[in-house]
Amino acid sequence: MTLLLSVTGFDPKRWRAALEAADGDRDIVLEPAHSADPAIEYAVVWKQPPGLLEGLPNLKAIFSLGAGVDHIFADKALPDVPVVRIVADDLTARMSEYVVWRVLDHFRRGRAYRTQQAQTIWHERLQPAAREITVGIMGFGELGRDAAGKLRALGFNVAGWSRTAKTAEGVETFAGEDGLNGFLAASDIVVVLLPLTAETRGIIDAGFLSRLKRRTPLGGPVLINAGRGGLQNEAAILEALEQDTLMEASLDVFNVEPLPADHPLWRHPRVFVTPHAAAVSDPDALAPAVMRQIAAHERGEPLRGVVDRTAGY
Amino acid sequence: MTLLLSVTGFDPKRWRAALEAADGDRDIVLEPAHSADPAIEYAVVWKQPPGLLEGLPNLKAIFSLGAGVDHIFADKALPDVPVVRIVADDLTARMSEYVVWRVLDHFRRGRAYRTQQAQTIWHERLQPAAREITVGIMGFGELGRDAAGKLRALGFNVAGWSRTAKTAEGVETFAGEDGLNGFLAASDIVVVLLPLTAETRGIIDAGFLSRLKRRTPLGGPVLINAGRGGLQNEAAILEALEQDTLMEASLDVFNVEPLPADHPLWRHPRVFVTPHAAAVSDPDALAPAVMRQIAAHERGEPLRGVVDRTAGY
Repeated sequence: MTLLLSVTGFDPKRWRAALEAADGDRDIVLEPAHSADPAIEYAVVWKQPPGLLEGLPNLKAIFSLGAGVDHIFADKALPDVPVVRIVADDLTARMSEYVVWRVLDHFRRGRAYRTQQAQTIWHERLQPAAREITVGIMGFGELGRDAAGKLRALGFNVAGWSRTAKTAEGVETFAGEDGLNGFLAASDIVVVLLPLTAETRGIIDAGFLSRLKRRTPLGGPVLINAGRGGLQNEAAILEALEQDTLMEASLDVFNVEPLPADHPLWRHPRVFVTPHAAAVSDPDALAPAVMRQIAAHERGEPLRGVVDRTAGY
Repeated sequence: MTLLLSVTGFDPKRWRAALEAADGDRDIVLEPAHSADPAIEYAVVWKQPPGLLEGLPNLKAIFSLGAGVDHIFADKALPDVPVVRIVADDLTARMSEYVVWRVLDHFRRGRAYRTQQAQTIWHERLQPAAREITVGIMGFGELGRDAAGKLRALGFNVAGWSRTAKTAEGVETFAGEDGLNGFLAASDIVVVLLPLTAETRGIIDAGFLSRLKRRTPLGGPVLINAGRGGLQNEAAILEALEQDTLMEASLDVFNVEPLPADHPLWRHPRVFVTPHAAAVSDPDALAPAVMRQIAAHERGEPLRGVVDRTAGY
């Protein structure tokens, strides 16, 4: 059995070494020997070149090296085998860290205190209690539920929104287009962890931003996007900031990455930009999960985390 | 029964209104009618004027409006009645928020990303996992233990140091001067929540800072002080930053407050300054706890949170 590894934007040697360390009995190739190599049974990919996976006669499954899978479906010549999303504690923990970090920085008025420090102003800001704030999480799968639990442990109220109805203890959940108004009306801080699909593309648009709460205990609403850049209309976000219908934002993802140097989001004083770093895929933490899944699949066990191609996640 | 309220630096009317809202059957005075008013049985104070509480013939207890009590003992004419520290969920929650916020901001490289944003640099920093980091908490009472639990829930290792030996599940604890070396050797991020006593005054000095870990997964050690300014030697902190034996610091408290405008800590690029705002005492949240304690005491129940005058906390 041979495993095909195709990684764009990261170091393939790091991943190869980690996969080999997790299970030394597999052949791992970075390019197929020929375009229809019958030895290749599994592919592990991040943004594979279009057509790379086409015509492999014995391909059994494709694994994504991150939580998102939209990069895989961007390939129009994708063979009809299961696509598997990584669900790993390490990735989930890192995403929740980012969410809690950004929620606390907005909630505890990090921007105001950094500005005051630059001006040597000693002034205590009014500080609401966490119990007076509702953090609304869009995308209520593995990542959203973990972040919700950690925010609740800090005393925040949490609301959840997802495409299909879901429940979670102590969380007010909303679903579908019908539930979006209620969700946005309940949320002081909106955290977006949605997958990028035909349905969610551009969901954070002018209409969405106009429905954010006007008044919150923090003075205005906050947007945090750690899902995908394609979810957001960046001109609409800038407009909402100018109109003060959006108070502050933390954005980890953008329509074009790297974010172009002349993009006004870099310079907006109420926007915090990180370079798609919310939840980095750590080879040493994720490779064992992939290799365990392959071994289980060979024993005849079902794959976990298989993507629903119709839903796109 | 009359309650004497003396608040310096905050709005006494806010506190009076909150105490009255919590229990409307008590007389509350802001100044004694005369210096030995026999009606006064309880005092609720924040930095009372020295001598204010002397000679009240029926004073039964003194309540502090914050977690610290050093401001009470600064009064050399303090009568020999129980001094009660406020222990309230609201105060504890706010302190843990501050601790988790500052730990995450240092851990997730907030300073580096803010600098990169100002320079429009898209560059993903190496990010250790929380499980590779130990946060050491000095002061392992109510506040320290709560912060420890919330940091552990995020995946951090936690070590604790206190004057007397304490234990907590999943936390490596150290005690006394003998335990300090081991504690500092274990901690990548040191969080100080100690009370200010004769023993702890100036504990964060050059010798202490020289014993911080040289190398940590973040590149160097981090200091967070949300206890009292009197715990730290500020010249030694600046020197350690210059020597790179201290990588970054978040300081909420200072020897002189407000921190003087010409103090170099305001301007140090690796120091984050907040104006003693880590855990603000919210009158509406804390006044009911005081009034409940007074009612319980009148029923003959023991006071909770009584300070050990010898230890000073």
